[in-house]
Amino acid sequence: MLDLMNVAWIEGAGPGGGVGGHLRILDQTRLPNRVEYLECTEVEQVWQAIKRLSVRGAPAIGIAAGYGCVVAAVAAERGLAPGAEAEAAVAQAVARAADYLATSRPTAVNLFWALERMRKLGPVGTARLLAEARAIQAEEVERCRQIGLHAWPVVEPLLRGGGGATGAGGPGLPGLPGVLTHCNAGALAAAGPGTATAPLYLAQERGVRFRAFVDETRPLLQGARLTAFELSAAGVPVTLICDNMAAQVMHAGRVRLVIVGADRIAANGDTANKIGTYGLAILARYHQVPFFVAAPSTSFDLTLPDGRGIPIEERGGEEITEGFGWRTAPVGIGTYSPAFDVTPHELITGILTERGVIAPVDAVQVAKVLR
Amino acid sequence: MLDLMNVAWIEGAGPGGGVGGHLRILDQTRLPNRVEYLECTEVEQVWQAIKRLSVRGAPAIGIAAGYGCVVAAVAAERGLAPGAEAEAAVAQAVARAADYLATSRPTAVNLFWALERMRKLGPVGTARLLAEARAIQAEEVERCRQIGLHAWPVVEPLLRGGGGATGAGGPGLPGLPGVLTHCNAGALAAAGPGTATAPLYLAQERGVRFRAFVDETRPLLQGARLTAFELSAAGVPVTLICDNMAAQVMHAGRVRLVIVGADRIAANGDTANKIGTYGLAILARYHQVPFFVAAPSTSFDLTLPDGRGIPIEERGGEEITEGFGWRTAPVGIGTYSPAFDVTPHELITGILTERGVIAPVDAVQVAKVLR
Repeated sequence: MLDLMNVAWIEGAGPGGGVGGHLRILDQTRLPNRVEYLECTEVEQVWQAIKRLSVRGAPAIGIAAGYGCVVAAVAAERGLAPGAEAEAAVAQAVARAADYLATSRPTAVNLFWALERMRKLGPVGTARLLAEARAIQAEEVERCRQIGLHAWPVVEPLLRGGGGATGAGGPGLPGLPGVLTHCNAGALAAAGPGTATAPLYLAQERGVRFRAFVDETRPLLQGARLTAFELSAAGVPVTLICDNMAAQVMHAGRVRLVIVGADRIAANGDTANKIGTYGLAILARYHQVPFFVAAPSTSFDLTLPDGRGIPIEERGGEEITEGFGWRTAPVGIGTYSPAFDVTPHELITGILTERGVIAPVDAVQVAKVLR
Repeated sequence: MLDLMNVAWIEGAGPGGGVGGHLRILDQTRLPNRVEYLECTEVEQVWQAIKRLSVRGAPAIGIAAGYGCVVAAVAAERGLAPGAEAEAAVAQAVARAADYLATSRPTAVNLFWALERMRKLGPVGTARLLAEARAIQAEEVERCRQIGLHAWPVVEPLLRGGGGATGAGGPGLPGLPGVLTHCNAGALAAAGPGTATAPLYLAQERGVRFRAFVDETRPLLQGARLTAFELSAAGVPVTLICDNMAAQVMHAGRVRLVIVGADRIAANGDTANKIGTYGLAILARYHQVPFFVAAPSTSFDLTLPDGRGIPIEERGGEEITEGFGWRTAPVGIGTYSPAFDVTPHELITGILTERGVIAPVDAVQVAKVLR
């Protein structure tokens, strides 16, 4: 697995009995060409890092937001003597930071969940806040590990099973059972082994050979830049394709299963995830390829009965027209750039969570597994 | 419509009674940022222009190939006195050029059709060859015009009709009936009003308002660079999307119909077209959106009973990993880059040709309309 931390608290000397240090965020916008870090000492930098997608992926956004509250708390505590007054100032700073960080991106529910968890601590010292942020991160690592373990009985037979799905191979299509994924729901997007990648890293660990077909994922190429990067670093054979080639790879019989992550899942299993996921689910259904969502329970929003209530972020058209540093479309052209879409539960074969596999995907099964 | 010729013969002084001049090809790889021309005086330059996609689109490739034979003929005739000897030399040069140009790209059948037509002229003067190449071009202009006229009774009611398909609109989705297209099957890809765009230019001419949703079409962005360019130059409201957003636009009820071009159509209507077309047809079927192919009869290959016999060009992975002038994927990553896919006839609502509309799409109807 990847030897890079997407989000980490860097210890430093704190004043008095408090916490010192700052938040280090891997700048994923520079990958795979450069490994650069953002050293955040102000909450505004954390907001920018989330907004600009330096840190992205629902669980990772939640983790960064948790630490973002600590960044605000450390700044608030500076110069104050330990005691009730300092704790009140810290609590106020955390509440402000939580309100502010909540405006960075609208779709991933982990953001709001993590901020709420930090805010609820109330008047405490920075050490307690840091412990909470670290707990959020450690718990996500464990959730991701558990996703892999729970998914294994479902994923293994698909990877090992015989049948025509291996395909004859070809120049770009050597014959290994294929798993297709979209965007990045890996270690970079989450913690530990990632969400959609958790069963894949487990397969790699257990010597089950497979090939990952990775959608490049326009406009920001998280598949090409991040998933291809982390899976190949782990030794997984990767074939990178453009998003519009997925149907052809399925048609060629090369895809045994699709696994994607999630940004928010409603109570009935409708799943918001990176734009293109919905179309992929339709293609998988047409080709009778099992389609799985992998997500920790923290990505569920049980206050929403179905996917219609999930707010979908629209991003600037320049990510489409100038995403590569030069203009790839006429100046002034109209664009439409939803960052996510919602896949209806009936197109999802199963949702792989740390508490078990939800299948079939409906409100009853979601409640049963998550209760 | 666009005020640019993709392919044109430029007159020049010829020796004796023969033809002079050269072939001018608009370098579409530089659009929309630059309008630059390749001035071809050697057949190798024409081969390169086709291979590198400076000229692309099945009908335009055929037209360029016809003129490419003239380029070879003019070179062969140079220094020879008019007469049987010169004509024999020209015929030999044309045969060689045809064999050579046939190796430039494998999928578009118009290439082979046009080369065969030039070769069959046998020992003639360059003037006759030039007339033939011009006839190929002029006939394609007329075929495209006729495609628009024949398509009109099918397309107009879809654009004018009421129903929910207009959608409520939104920031990037203002409320006009939508037509979705993929890659470029426009004036740049063909002649005159293009193939898939012919009914759209006609609608524009006749005052029927609509919005074109244009897939950017990775890896080489012919939709973003070419279709968005030529449609917006003609005053058509354009919304550019990434390929993986098409399902979402259909789900939002914004697409009344899909129209794409074709590179080769088998006798049963199975259609090879730019990679991504097959997936789009599946998405259209899922959303009950009519899906049309527009193509001249010159794009049909009736020697093939179905799409399985159509050779699919695989292109270099660097078009995916370095298509934007910088590396967007890890060095050494595997890729798969089919330039085309085959849409089975049963997913196509109708094929719009200059001889009429083929619907339903099957071998019987293809034979009936094309006979």
